[in-house]
Amino acid sequence: MNMGLIGTGTVGSGVIFIDQKNGDKLSASAKTPFKLHTLCDLDFSGSAYDLSTYSLTSNWRELVDNPDIDIVVELIGGDEPARTIIETALSKGKHVVTANKLVIAKYGKELFALAKAKGVHLLFEAAVGGAVPIIKPLRSTLLPNHIKGIYGIVNGTTNFILTAMQNQGSGYAEVLKEAQKLGYAEADPTSDVGGFDSLYKLKVLAMVAFGVEVDISDILIEGITDITSKDIEYCKDMGLVIKLLAIGQEREGQLELRVHPVMLAKDHPLAAVNGVYNAIYVIGDAAQDIMFYGRGAGSIPTASSVWADVLDIVNDTTYSVDDLRPVKLRSLDTVMSEYYFRFQVKDKTGVLADIASILARHGISVKNAVQKGLGDDAELVMITHTVSESAKNEALSEINSLSSVSKISGVIRVGI
Amino acid sequence: MNMGLIGTGTVGSGVIFIDQKNGDKLSASAKTPFKLHTLCDLDFSGSAYDLSTYSLTSNWRELVDNPDIDIVVELIGGDEPARTIIETALSKGKHVVTANKLVIAKYGKELFALAKAKGVHLLFEAAVGGAVPIIKPLRSTLLPNHIKGIYGIVNGTTNFILTAMQNQGSGYAEVLKEAQKLGYAEADPTSDVGGFDSLYKLKVLAMVAFGVEVDISDILIEGITDITSKDIEYCKDMGLVIKLLAIGQEREGQLELRVHPVMLAKDHPLAAVNGVYNAIYVIGDAAQDIMFYGRGAGSIPTASSVWADVLDIVNDTTYSVDDLRPVKLRSLDTVMSEYYFRFQVKDKTGVLADIASILARHGISVKNAVQKGLGDDAELVMITHTVSESAKNEALSEINSLSSVSKISGVIRVGI
Repeated sequence: MNMGLIGTGTVGSGVIFIDQKNGDKLSASAKTPFKLHTLCDLDFSGSAYDLSTYSLTSNWRELVDNPDIDIVVELIGGDEPARTIIETALSKGKHVVTANKLVIAKYGKELFALAKAKGVHLLFEAAVGGAVPIIKPLRSTLLPNHIKGIYGIVNGTTNFILTAMQNQGSGYAEVLKEAQKLGYAEADPTSDVGGFDSLYKLKVLAMVAFGVEVDISDILIEGITDITSKDIEYCKDMGLVIKLLAIGQEREGQLELRVHPVMLAKDHPLAAVNGVYNAIYVIGDAAQDIMFYGRGAGSIPTASSVWADVLDIVNDTTYSVDDLRPVKLRSLDTVMSEYYFRFQVKDKTGVLADIASILARHGISVKNAVQKGLGDDAELVMITHTVSESAKNEALSEINSLSSVSKISGVIRVGI
Repeated sequence: MNMGLIGTGTVGSGVIFIDQKNGDKLSASAKTPFKLHTLCDLDFSGSAYDLSTYSLTSNWRELVDNPDIDIVVELIGGDEPARTIIETALSKGKHVVTANKLVIAKYGKELFALAKAKGVHLLFEAAVGGAVPIIKPLRSTLLPNHIKGIYGIVNGTTNFILTAMQNQGSGYAEVLKEAQKLGYAEADPTSDVGGFDSLYKLKVLAMVAFGVEVDISDILIEGITDITSKDIEYCKDMGLVIKLLAIGQEREGQLELRVHPVMLAKDHPLAAVNGVYNAIYVIGDAAQDIMFYGRGAGSIPTASSVWADVLDIVNDTTYSVDDLRPVKLRSLDTVMSEYYFRFQVKDKTGVLADIASILARHGISVKNAVQKGLGDDAELVMITHTVSESAKNEALSEINSLSSVSKISGVIRVGI
């Protein structure tokens, strides 16, 4: 079998590295002889590798049209032309391996159906979690389980920022700059810090874990941009750690999908996932809680996942994704969470009573409330018991209109 | 395909539970129709499940001889008759799934060869780490990697004991009693606390990760029975956590295998693995560091791994273990570690100088030394830089003969 690789950037060059370093091992583990045959990119002049053993082309159609190529590896990312490349390759009866979360999230349903019709595989382990195995485990290790929940730290940039804020006590803006300097955050960080990267990955996870196709605009999404060093400090005082999670879980027979920051108990396994690492924590009805941890990005680690998919195709040891059922997500209003609230208050008698009585009227009971600071700097920090999204929103809107409350500064969910 | 299950105890009853709860899902995910056909045990009268849909027998030979049975699941554990059952089933061209670490560790080499000769599979995901996937990931996810090291918390009993000592400040004996009361430790705890359970699992991991057959008596083994609450306390003061690890790693082209307690930095991912949980941390040359975490024991979690193996056979999506190479392990004398030493000393001038000069003479440099207590209770706690096993042993033997040292109380490796 011959592989054609389209895109020799970060992950693509990792694929070449592994081919050259571990080629003998890869061949020894393959039932069918195979090789990396053709590379496609616009420019090869900057490559760090000896490319003399590969055919080179700058035209992806030439690679995809080549009848000698059996497996197309798409690593250019983004929407087009990646979608067209994958679709064309599948149409021609070629297997496809990709790291493209966007294309799988947006067009997975049609592409899986096309692959099935053509009797070929479309694999995408590297689309979520980099080197962390999660797509295949959901279709093998966890197959005997009914999946009840999946909780992922799937964005290294935001996890780096939150970890640094936690460890250094620095503010968001300062840490973001550091992350940009280290190459962990892009110049325009919106896709990461706004939660959008996690959102696409969550949609992909939901396809595999729950077999569903959902409207991405129905997924609750909150990024980390409103989290301040004060929130981190108070959170630490309470033995909690803030993580941006991509969550998919079943509640009363309906599916909930959401991306938002969560305060976790510091002994939760996800709380120990620091820096640019990723982890996906899964609850199944048989295995119970299982976690997969590793490098969420990086050239060679991500390429390891790409090669694992390729070997699964070569050895015919892979799975297919079930036909996706379109489902309507559980209404956001009914999502239940415990909450952390931070209110900037005028330090006067009665403010706690005012807030507590509004919360009580909405059925929200308070687990714990602490006043921090004095005078104009006074803040009231509270942790509630479980409350619905709608009750929380109504209560906060009333609290916002209290003359004794100058600002609602922090609203973060607690626990999973 | 028909499955026959031999042994309906802890894990076997979990297999029946999953069959009855998730049977529809299992069937839907199978390419070939299959069912759990026959159960074998000496007595079924205590079963919590309705067994009326299964054939029952108390004679394993009857099950293994039955030409309708394609997959034999051996869950009785121990050496004989488990080994004979597995060998007989393979000889008759049946696939075998087992959770039996002892049989795989002792007879894996011959049994893998027999399975290969007969063109059938012998799978054993549940033999290491309970619900934690590690055998299959080593043969799929991690296949593109050259494995450099594997570091497992693979014994829940010892991890429960160490976690409880850590959290409660209690002594070993007290916590062991608690573990026995909770059913986490056996009346004779030697197999767990002495490290022997981890030893067999390490031998199995080495077969799969490194493709080697080693003499189990060459593996370094130390249990947790010498760890005291004082060691735990000092360790905590230094930001370290003690775990019993099963370690396999390559050093200068040779393999090292060892089971012993290790003090880990508290931000190492393995340090956050608490209670009866298991985790296996793997370093590959491509994926770099990856960790698999979950429940290391328990009826239904372990049965989830058994079912994953069965589905891999039914769907023909599995791997085989390479022919094992017999290797000689790296000499224990050359194993390098940092060390924690705790010496009970007579609190007099010069004791630190005496000890330090012996260490220096053996090329052991001290990273940090603290005197704890006074008078007859005085102790000297040290962390060394990296030192070879032989230099450490020679130095400790000289220190032991110093008149100012009354006892060498703690000798624990630091870091991996």
